[in-house]
Parts: sequence; C-alpha cells; structure tokens
Amino acid sequence: MRIYDVIMKKRNGGTLSDEEIAFFIDGYTAGRIPDYQASALLMAIWFKGMDEHETAVLTDCMARSGDMVDLSAIPGIKVDKHSTGGVGDKTTLIVAPVVAACGAPVAKMSGRGLGHTGGTIDKLESIPGFRTSVERERFFQIVRDAGLSVIGQTGNIAPADKKIYALRDVTATVDSLPLIASSIMSKKLAAGSDAIVLDVKTGSGAFMKSLDDSIGLAQAMVSIGEHNGRRTIALITDMDLPLGHAIGNSLEVIEAVDTLRGRGPADLTEVCLQLASNMLVLAGKGELAACRAMAEEALRSGAAFGKLRAMVAAQGGDVSVLDDTEKFAKAPVVHEVLSPADGYISHMQTELCGIASVALGAGRASKEDAIDLSAGILLLKKTGDAVKKGEPIARLLTSRQELVPEGERLLLEAVTFSDAQPAPEKLVLARVTKDAVEKF
Amino acid sequence: MRIYDVIMKKRNGGTLSDEEIAFFIDGYTAGRIPDYQASALLMAIWFKGMDEHETAVLTDCMARSGDMVDLSAIPGIKVDKHSTGGVGDKTTLIVAPVVAACGAPVAKMSGRGLGHTGGTIDKLESIPGFRTSVERERFFQIVRDAGLSVIGQTGNIAPADKKIYALRDVTATVDSLPLIASSIMSKKLAAGSDAIVLDVKTGSGAFMKSLDDSIGLAQAMVSIGEHNGRRTIALITDMDLPLGHAIGNSLEVIEAVDTLRGRGPADLTEVCLQLASNMLVLAGKGELAACRAMAEEALRSGAAFGKLRAMVAAQGGDVSVLDDTEKFAKAPVVHEVLSPADGYISHMQTELCGIASVALGAGRASKEDAIDLSAGILLLKKTGDAVKKGEPIARLLTSRQELVPEGERLLLEAVTFSDAQPAPEKLVLARVTKDAVEKF
Repeated sequence: MRIYDVIMKKRNGGTLSDEEIAFFIDGYTAGRIPDYQASALLMAIWFKGMDEHETAVLTDCMARSGDMVDLSAIPGIKVDKHSTGGVGDKTTLIVAPVVAACGAPVAKMSGRGLGHTGGTIDKLESIPGFRTSVERERFFQIVRDAGLSVIGQTGNIAPADKKIYALRDVTATVDSLPLIASSIMSKKLAAGSDAIVLDVKTGSGAFMKSLDDSIGLAQAMVSIGEHNGRRTIALITDMDLPLGHAIGNSLEVIEAVDTLRGRGPADLTEVCLQLASNMLVLAGKGELAACRAMAEEALRSGAAFGKLRAMVAAQGGDVSVLDDTEKFAKAPVVHEVLSPADGYISHMQTELCGIASVALGAGRASKEDAIDLSAGILLLKKTGDAVKKGEPIARLLTSRQELVPEGERLLLEAVTFSDAQPAPEKLVLARVTKDAVEKF
Repeated sequence: MRIYDVIMKKRNGGTLSDEEIAFFIDGYTAGRIPDYQASALLMAIWFKGMDEHETAVLTDCMARSGDMVDLSAIPGIKVDKHSTGGVGDKTTLIVAPVVAACGAPVAKMSGRGLGHTGGTIDKLESIPGFRTSVERERFFQIVRDAGLSVIGQTGNIAPADKKIYALRDVTATVDSLPLIASSIMSKKLAAGSDAIVLDVKTGSGAFMKSLDDSIGLAQAMVSIGEHNGRRTIALITDMDLPLGHAIGNSLEVIEAVDTLRGRGPADLTEVCLQLASNMLVLAGKGELAACRAMAEEALRSGAAFGKLRAMVAAQGGDVSVLDDTEKFAKAPVVHEVLSPADGYISHMQTELCGIASVALGAGRASKEDAIDLSAGILLLKKTGDAVKKGEPIARLLTSRQELVPEGERLLLEAVTFSDAQPAPEKLVLARVTKDAVEKF
C-alpha cells in the first residue's frame, strides 16, 4: 500500500477502506508517512469528507495509536462526559458528584485550560492540597471507594490525534466535521468509559456557530461512539453567554459548591441536571424522567456535595474550603466594571469574556504559562438583565493591578447593551441520540 | 502575511492576490514555508483552481525564483519551442534548423529524457564530440554565427518549479491544470525567448487524453505566456502513435537528418513544418501561409540541413556522421519483431512503445541511469498499415541481447491488430492562439 494512492483515492471522492485508514494512522504516528503527505490527505478529507464508517474507523485507529485505558477494574457502567469547550463551564465539578451520588461510577480524566477556555484540572488545583496526578491503581481505588475521581490525563492517550491536530492547526484543515469529531472521540474512546455524554456548545463563542452545524457535529460524534460500542448521547447547549456567573478557577469551584448545595445559578443548575440525567440513563439507572428526579434529589439531599467532598479528601485536598468557601485564597485586587449605559444587556460575547479572564491572569495563552488560581470575573449582570448607567455589571479579580485595564476593556467589548429586553435564550437546544434529534 | 491565511483563502475558493502568490513562492523556495503547508495549499489549488491572472502571476514568480536568462545579446526575435513530452519526438532537431534557415535565431535549452519520453540533449549527444554543455557567452556567439544552438539547461532555472513539482509528485497534486501549465511555462519564461510555440500532445500516450483537455492546457499556457509579454501559440498534436519511425537517440538523429534532406516520414515532416511555420509567424516573418512556404523551401533547398551541420560543427560535433548517417555507431544486437496476426495495425500505445525503448537501454528509468545511445526501435509498420502474420513490424536495437525479450514483449503489448483498416488520424488537431481555438 502507498499513501500516495490513499491521497489520490480520497481526493477523487473515494471511500477509504479500513486498511487504508489504519495504514495512514499507523504510518503517520510512527513517522513513516511524512507531514507533507499527511497534510495533503487532510486537505483532501476537508474537501471530500468521510462517511460514518470511515470516521468511526479513523477514530478507532487514532484511539488505538496509544494507551487504551482499561476501566474494567471498576464495577458498573462508567459514563464519561465531554464538553466541546466553554467559558465558565464548571459542569464537571457538579455533574460528576451528582452522577456518583446516584450510584454510577465516574472515572474521569480532564484537561487543563488553554486560550479562552478553562480546564477542570486547573479548577480543581485551586483547592489546597488537591492532587490531580494520581497513579492508575489509586485512581481506580478512589472511584470504587468515593464513587468518582477526576484526574489529569496520564499515559500516552491518542498520540495520533496530537500529531494530526498540530498539523491541521497550521494547514487550515481544523474545521472539518469528521476531523473534529474523530479528534474529540479518539480521546474519549481511549479513556475507557463504557458510555459518553457530550456537551456540544453552540453559538457565538463556540466552534459551531449555528444550531444545525452543532447538531451535525453531535451526530457525527454519537455515530462514532455507537459504531465503537460506546453508548453516546449529546446535548446541544447555548454558548451565547457564560454558564453561571463565575469565570476563573477558584471562583468556579466556589460556584460549583454553591450549586451542589442548591444555591447555584438557575442556568448552571439546569444544564448540570440535564447532563447528569442523561449520564444516568446511559448508566442504566432508568428512563430520563426518573433519572432527572434522582439527580435533583442528589442535589437537594446533599448527597452530591458529599461525593465531591469525598473525592477531594481522597485526592489530598483541603475539604474545609468546600465547607466554607470564604476560606479560598482571595485575589488582592478587586475592580468593579460599571455599566456605561441604561437599558438591558442584549448580548455577551462568551469568547471575549474568557479572553478577559485570561487577561486578568486566570488562564494561559500558551501551554507553559502559570495561572493565577484566584483571578477571574464574577458577572453581576448577564444577557437579559436590566442595567443602570454606573451600576456594577461585573467584578474583576486579579493579583496584579496592572492587568485590570485590559481585562475591563475586553469585558466591556464583550457586552452589548440595548433599550429593549432581549428574548430569553434556551439553555439546552437539542438532544441527539443514535436514533433521533430532539430539538427543544 | 501568514501562509496559513493563504491556504485558508484558496481552500475557501478565494482568489489569491499577487502578493500572496509571491509570498508563497518566495517563502517556499527559500525554505521558510515548510513542505506540509505547501502541500496543503497545492491540494487546495487542485480543488479550487486558479484563474488566468493567478496562474500567470504564479508562473512569473516561479520563473523569477532563479536565473532569468537574458538573450538580448542575440539580435532578433528569439522563438522557443516546447513539447509536452513525446515518444520518438525529434521535432526540435528539425524545426530549429528550419527556423534558423529562415532567418529567425533559435537559442534553446533542452532537457534529458526520463521515463518513457526521450530528451533532445541525449539525442544530440549521440553525435560524436557534440558538446551540450556550453558557456553562456559561447552559446550566444553560436546563435549569432550559426543561427541556432541547442544546449543543456544551465544555471538555476525555476528552482521553485523543481521543488513544487517534487512535492506534487508525492502528494497526488500533479494533474492540476494551473499547476501543470505554470510548471512548463515557468521554465520557458526563465529561458528568455521572446515568443514560444507549444506542441501539446493529446491522446493515449499523453498527459491529456482528450482533445478538450489538451486544448484547455494549451489555452492556459498561451494565456500565461501572453500575460507575461511572450507571444505564444500552441499546436495540439496527436500522440496516439509515435512520430516517425525511430525511437532511440542516434536512430532519431538519423531520422531527423533524413527529414532535413527531404527524405523523412510524411507525418514527422508535416508536424515539423507546422511547428516551424508558427515559430516563423511569431518571429515576425510573415503570415502563416508565407511562413509555411519559407519552411518548405528551407527543407527543399538544403538550407535547414546546413544549419544543423553548422550548429553541430560549432558545438564540436563530428559532421561526417550527418553527411553519412551510416557512420553512426550501430547497436550490435538487432532483432525483428514479427506480426502475430494478419490484418491491420489498429492502434499503438505510444507510452508503451517508449517504455519498450527504455527497456532496450535507450532511456533511463531514474536520473542516474546511463543510456545506450544506439539502442531503440525502428517501427517498420505503424497504425493503419496492413500486416501479414510473420512479417517484421519493428526492428529492436540494443547492445545487450538479454534486454530483447522484455523489449519485444512490451512492443507487442503496445500494438493492437484488427481486420479492418482504421480511419486515419489527424496529426495536428488544433491551433490555439490568445484570440482563438482553430480545430482541424
């Protein structure tokens, strides 16, 4: 087999065989196929696409290019959750304990933040003492004992994806549906869970701007999961505004704790309950409505909060900051952003809110940057809220006074005001399963 | 400017600006743009094409990536000739002397053969003593004195084309009209002639199999030439059978000499007269009919043969082999291929005839191979000829007896027989100028 012929076949609109796809992934991962042939093939895929079977096989090959985590040492159906990247998205910190409290084990590997999106691992590290680097056996033990564990990615997960993504990033082949879907799902397949709930963001701050495109991506990922023996459901959620009020690492942990104690923002609570109920469905805990009731009860009873507490304790974290979130280290500089107008907030550019938070020190522009765990933004007003000129709309928190002007500038750029109140937007716009697309 | 944005723009169907094209060619030639980004852009061009202006600018940038030969030291309008690769195509050896005999200087750089196509430089080197490597000043002097000179390519001609072609060859992006046209024309622009006549082959052995595709390629090249200030005309010629009877280096020189002396095969003579008359038109020698008459007279009078003789003498070659072609070194092994059937030759796969000739030692499979200058094939019968079973249809010549069976096998594979005589095919199918396409 020659990669030249594989490129030619795809370029001419052909369907690649399983062997041809495996030949490409194996050869490229091992360095036998050079970048310049891989990029030509990726561009041909960008133009000609891949069908469901090709995409499923591509994803499987990418997953198998490195370690395949084996979670069979943990009893029960393990359900993973993945978000396509949000701003202020602390759902994992809430959903995982809720699901665990309902008896479904969660053994989750999470990532760090990069660019305008945050990462669960950074958020958890704002809890003093919390260890995100945990040996495999100990990880399994914590899931068995506490019902959940969230750790940083370990081992050699989907190296083909890393290499292909880096190449796509410099050859204008990122925005290809099969390539996006296979990139995300290869890591999920390798991470070893039995089932997957996907939170696919849609809207101005998301990768997919339109609902139809987002549904298309969700369908591609659900298809990949199901083709590879993993039950998969996707929710399409709105990214036209940040979830909850907090953006920034410890700020988001505090908001997650508030939500687990039943005092969280309504939008965040609702999205978490929907994600959790779908995870419980896949874990075999019953029909959606019954699972929703179980998830609500786990919040109300404090059982979910207890699960977060148990995990933090098991991973060496200081649980006293969860019991009293006032104990979290506080950013020394607090600056209030005032509304420049009377009226309503008509829109917030979520991505710019994230960038504003990064500018305050809460995130990293490149992989090597250190982050300020207590920095970030508390949104006092969000889309749809009435504001008066001079009224505080957000609180900026940082350790460095000199970062405030840029953070304020970016936040004000993110916010649009209007005289009329905008129509409220839906939080969850659709649910995609292998059999159906349900729009809400 | 970033190459990423250039790739993205072309991928999305945009028209690249002159600056973007120059940025790509300059950066890629200098090694600032890596192969993997260049191959992604080439694949995007394969899918989205380039308009006439883009293609002209691309070609100009490729030409300017290396030396631009300055022929202004030679008085008169210098007309170049290029063939898109033939088998048994010795037209340059005839056309250049004819044109020179009519008073138009020919300062031509030619290439060596590779694969199934021969090269004029190899053919000329079968003349004892003939030097194809000549200093620039001496080259000019020969053209001024003898009226023509054909030498090997010297200097750094269109290095961008070399690099891009090598990349296209391994990334399935060869068969793109703007990329083929710019590759050919970049070398012609750099070679410095004022005007160009293109011999675009069409048919089974050619790059372009259909007449329409060949006309499309011709139009693209004519447009490039004219956009860049070079008067350009293309003839579309048939490649469904080899031109003349001889394939192989000294065999083709002998046939060229025969043709210059008025004893050549009719098909070869006719194609040469048409190419020469069009070159004379571009050299400003008159209307096409008048130029045709001049070219015929140059053959008839022996003036054209005299020009070849003068050039060979000036470049150190032994003219006695031209005066008596029996003096050429002879291949020690001669084998006659016999017709396996009664009837007519209905078709010859030109490319396979070329490959058979290479198999006998007349060509090189890779750049480093040595070639047997006296080896090759004399076709005793061609398409349309009646044959009897057991009658010789071709003579194979080689220095190595062991090469005969493979040469014979390939030649017999190339020839198709039929009971009915096939309709004769046209030699020149169309003439393409900047204003019109004239089909014959």
